[in-house]
Amino acid sequence: MAKAWSLKSRPSGMPASVNFELIDQPYQPLKDGEIRVTNSWLSVDPYMRGRMNDVKSYAEPFQLGEPMQGGAVGVVTESRADNFAIGDKVLHMLGWRDEAVVPVAGAQKIPENGLPIQTFLHSLGLTGATAYFGLLHTASAKAGDIVFVSAAAGAVGSAVVQIAKAKGMTVIGSAGGLEKCAWVKELGADACVDYKAGPVLPQLMAAAPKGIDVYFDNVGGEHLDAAYATARLHARFAICGMIDAYNHGEPMSFKYFIRTIPARIRSTGFLFTDFLPQMGEFMADAGALVATGKLKARETVFQGLESAPDAFLGLFTGANTGKMLVKI
Amino acid sequence: MAKAWSLKSRPSGMPASVNFELIDQPYQPLKDGEIRVTNSWLSVDPYMRGRMNDVKSYAEPFQLGEPMQGGAVGVVTESRADNFAIGDKVLHMLGWRDEAVVPVAGAQKIPENGLPIQTFLHSLGLTGATAYFGLLHTASAKAGDIVFVSAAAGAVGSAVVQIAKAKGMTVIGSAGGLEKCAWVKELGADACVDYKAGPVLPQLMAAAPKGIDVYFDNVGGEHLDAAYATARLHARFAICGMIDAYNHGEPMSFKYFIRTIPARIRSTGFLFTDFLPQMGEFMADAGALVATGKLKARETVFQGLESAPDAFLGLFTGANTGKMLVKI
Repeated sequence: MAKAWSLKSRPSGMPASVNFELIDQPYQPLKDGEIRVTNSWLSVDPYMRGRMNDVKSYAEPFQLGEPMQGGAVGVVTESRADNFAIGDKVLHMLGWRDEAVVPVAGAQKIPENGLPIQTFLHSLGLTGATAYFGLLHTASAKAGDIVFVSAAAGAVGSAVVQIAKAKGMTVIGSAGGLEKCAWVKELGADACVDYKAGPVLPQLMAAAPKGIDVYFDNVGGEHLDAAYATARLHARFAICGMIDAYNHGEPMSFKYFIRTIPARIRSTGFLFTDFLPQMGEFMADAGALVATGKLKARETVFQGLESAPDAFLGLFTGANTGKMLVKI
Repeated sequence: MAKAWSLKSRPSGMPASVNFELIDQPYQPLKDGEIRVTNSWLSVDPYMRGRMNDVKSYAEPFQLGEPMQGGAVGVVTESRADNFAIGDKVLHMLGWRDEAVVPVAGAQKIPENGLPIQTFLHSLGLTGATAYFGLLHTASAKAGDIVFVSAAAGAVGSAVVQIAKAKGMTVIGSAGGLEKCAWVKELGADACVDYKAGPVLPQLMAAAPKGIDVYFDNVGGEHLDAAYATARLHARFAICGMIDAYNHGEPMSFKYFIRTIPARIRSTGFLFTDFLPQMGEFMADAGALVATGKLKARETVFQGLESAPDAFLGLFTGANTGKMLVKI
């Protein structure tokens, strides 16, 4: 019988295995306009933590006892929709399960272009699109800009580094530890701040003595404050994630927030779904970068549906380099 | 002999009288392109606090022992410039003194339209322009928006309230005390949060149960956090001032900053000088509001050049309702 992970109880603070339960999925016949998909790969992402709370945040909260949701790619095994045939590969948002009944409005066909199917969960999926639109649209980054990106060894951050370099920007990444920093530089970053080696601000000031034009924020907290401190005139911040804050309710404290005014900092929160109408632009542009090897992804893969909660929990302990995935 | 206020020592924290010194201004013959102006009114504004530090902030720091600068209006008494005649009224930035030698590039002629000359220091001057451009351009506020503005009984805030009402918005002001709140409502605000009566957030939630679309920030701190907490989708914040933070170096702490992402909050720092090329639009639009009585200012007037530091210090203790001015 098909299985799915449900939220058994809402975590307070850091989630734990005990919050999740693997449940049976009763057989569900297809309605018109639906397809049945056998999932091959599941995406786990930090934003999912928000949906585990009982407040509307990015999206509706996960319901207790119901299958959770998230990005997934798989193969159509049954179809009651005109444009989808058995064997088609699709991207959809009914992850956290091995089989999904997907209304076709929520499914996107994956082109047969020789790329591994899970590319549509990272470079050409949610994380790539988040990097692309956050950097180029929300933060209006352009050639010549000095860009700082936190969690640069993460799924989104590593895409930001590569897209920024491909577009002619100077890039300073931040990551935890020598190994991750080495990879960030391998991706093309001009410098990498190792936040585990010491405070962020002095390292950032050394790496960007002229200051920064753009900050792509994946973590909040100390990194964001360092960005306020070093922002140049008309700096733009794309606020994408605050992994530092997802698991505790502590206030975030900024010593340099006041520089918002003299530096005219524009800080904007965004989700990649804001840019769904522009996905064509992304697919064309990022597709070319992937094809020419300018946009690569490292994958951290957990095996089997059973491992999905461990993969998710690993996001908060730095267990992943690049994109965290579950292979079914 | 002409006199000017200079900065005798740089304040650390709250400035005090001892930081200021009235100095003689030696006679300075005019060069080509300069005019001599007898100042009638001086403006004192919170942003001047930033120029008292020895770091570049909005503008160059005030130099110790030199006359300070600021908005002023006065009458031309001598001219070596073609377009300025004796008797012309002008607005310029060489305040904090009774007489100024002004390069005409820094002087703006005041039209003879029957308005009191000091109107060009508030409704049609720096504070009016700050309100106008911050609200309509930086925050992209439009008819139907729910607008929250802090320090709504202050010079900028009271203009924001009136411009927002004139443009068809719902307005919630914040001010300290019953009397100031009564005036804010008299200006047209739909509600007023009295921050001296209790915490801001519950009052704001009661006044704006649907949340806010725009926040015009003059104070930072608790007010800004309440704005994060109540921001609706795609809310825009115009960050104009942080009077709470000018006099101490404490970090600013936000419990609700994380709502930047789900609400896609766009927060932008600005100075009215960013909009100098659009001053014509402002003069026409705000001039019509002044002429029809829709944009009024209350003035708190200190008498005589000697009182200028006291007027300035009063800004930080809430001594003013509306625009703080010094009449010479």
